[in-house]
Amino acid sequence: MKVAIVGATGVTGGSIVDGLFASDTQFDITALVRPSSVEKPAAIKLKERGIKIIPIELQDNHEKLVAALNGIDVVISAIHYQSIGDEIPLSNAAKEAGVKRYVPCFFATIAPRGVMLHHDRKEEILDHIQRIYLPYTVIAVGWWYQISLPRIPSSKLDEGLTFANNNIIAGGNQPSALTDVRDIGKYVATIISDPRTINKKVFAFSESKTQNEIHELVEKVTGEKPQRVDMSKEQIEEQISPFKKAGESNDMRSVMEYWMSWGVRGDNTAENAVYLGYVLAKDLYPELQGRSLEEFIQDVLDGKVKKFYGQ
Amino acid sequence: MKVAIVGATGVTGGSIVDGLFASDTQFDITALVRPSSVEKPAAIKLKERGIKIIPIELQDNHEKLVAALNGIDVVISAIHYQSIGDEIPLSNAAKEAGVKRYVPCFFATIAPRGVMLHHDRKEEILDHIQRIYLPYTVIAVGWWYQISLPRIPSSKLDEGLTFANNNIIAGGNQPSALTDVRDIGKYVATIISDPRTINKKVFAFSESKTQNEIHELVEKVTGEKPQRVDMSKEQIEEQISPFKKAGESNDMRSVMEYWMSWGVRGDNTAENAVYLGYVLAKDLYPELQGRSLEEFIQDVLDGKVKKFYGQ
Repeated sequence: MKVAIVGATGVTGGSIVDGLFASDTQFDITALVRPSSVEKPAAIKLKERGIKIIPIELQDNHEKLVAALNGIDVVISAIHYQSIGDEIPLSNAAKEAGVKRYVPCFFATIAPRGVMLHHDRKEEILDHIQRIYLPYTVIAVGWWYQISLPRIPSSKLDEGLTFANNNIIAGGNQPSALTDVRDIGKYVATIISDPRTINKKVFAFSESKTQNEIHELVEKVTGEKPQRVDMSKEQIEEQISPFKKAGESNDMRSVMEYWMSWGVRGDNTAENAVYLGYVLAKDLYPELQGRSLEEFIQDVLDGKVKKFYGQ
Repeated sequence: MKVAIVGATGVTGGSIVDGLFASDTQFDITALVRPSSVEKPAAIKLKERGIKIIPIELQDNHEKLVAALNGIDVVISAIHYQSIGDEIPLSNAAKEAGVKRYVPCFFATIAPRGVMLHHDRKEEILDHIQRIYLPYTVIAVGWWYQISLPRIPSSKLDEGLTFANNNIIAGGNQPSALTDVRDIGKYVATIISDPRTINKKVFAFSESKTQNEIHELVEKVTGEKPQRVDMSKEQIEEQISPFKKAGESNDMRSVMEYWMSWGVRGDNTAENAVYLGYVLAKDLYPELQGRSLEEFIQDVLDGKVKKFYGQ
């Protein structure tokens, strides 16, 4: 199966590349990389692993994109969220090249429309995909283990936490679906090899936990009680409000809206995913297991998890 | 099963009332009617058929609406499209009253988002329904027989045609799903009695025909060749363009966008419905049959079909 990935040098894309390599299915991988990034270490690493690198711009480059995607079975977008508009020309080219499955960049929590601006933009990309009747598979994975853990007093977890979070949202009792970023690729490899998932939204996550349960688990594994910083619905609303008024999209707003969604509203559950039309990877592949959160905490404690972003 | 209907005095609502009465399932029907319409003939007719009439405003009337919907199993909206915003307070009240299934007003063709303003507004109502996690069933029925037939030279069909259409859109070769309005209620009665359709979108239509096939069938049944007025994609775009620029929503724009969708783009097919996440009533209920288009043409010729709107 010939797979082309956009964003293969990023965190999600990296997990996907690892997952495709580790799979029993034989994947022939192409990475579409911006010409300006081809000489960067991350791209060179991909090349060393035997991945074909195509330096290409996504915008205003239709004919070349179509040529690059000619013969490709599956296109996977793990694009940076600020570049998500590039999925319009990418999906148009995929349609013309006869790509059999397009996986837009959804690899996060699930929610209805109108809750998170960031998520709504992903839905608008899906709207476009549907207008051109491009075969697709949406893959959502829930909230990432890597940004779910609190710091502990000894700071022993700090090295492995990309984004430590000691805030307990609205009491900390909403269950939320969680996945180790390192397992995203494993789920993706399985889902894109399955004809049942064509034109479907799939929710693939490893565990469901409340924040209170996460704190208990951290204490159990590390022997240290994490600090709790209570954060109410109103406090989150107050932080989002100025961005909303200004129509501004940024990292802070995005994080706050995610917290509002999974933490206050409780959107990010298997039950709600089914309500919203997703099929569950747990139903499709009962034997497919991701790492447990407990295992992840132990890995962080043992220095086996690398921090990502800004490294 | 206790059913409350909004818009029961309208065309779609009337078909739904008939369908519920004709069903094997025992439905206890309540009609929510504007206080100003309670004394109108259509409302009095409903009352004479044993339907409970509740005179009620939908806007700014939350507590009374909740009380009216208390104990109701299924709420069906067959609201006029210009009042579709009233579905927000209606669905909020349904949620609070514990209604088990809410059927928003979709009873027309299927299409992706961003093709028809009118359809997008329906999708936005569904977004709201999903944000409040109200159990729902979307029922689309395709384009109506009643607005699909051309006039014939002898004018023999005119009396039964609500909206005669001799325009052949973009060559007339796109297949499109069609249903007799009189059968909408039959489909609705079956679908809302089925636990499998909860939180699903269902496409229930009777026949799939191209415009050229419709003309042939009219000629076969009536012995007269209908006039063909060719209408190109560009002509439709030209007619829609000023409304789009002005951000204006009106009947003409709505009809033109429907034509663009089913006639030019070819959105309104079973195949596309499945792609867009609908389940097909034909798959769920292979034995459930609507009137054929041929039967409908004969009925019009025989004066058995009444024109609706503006009568």
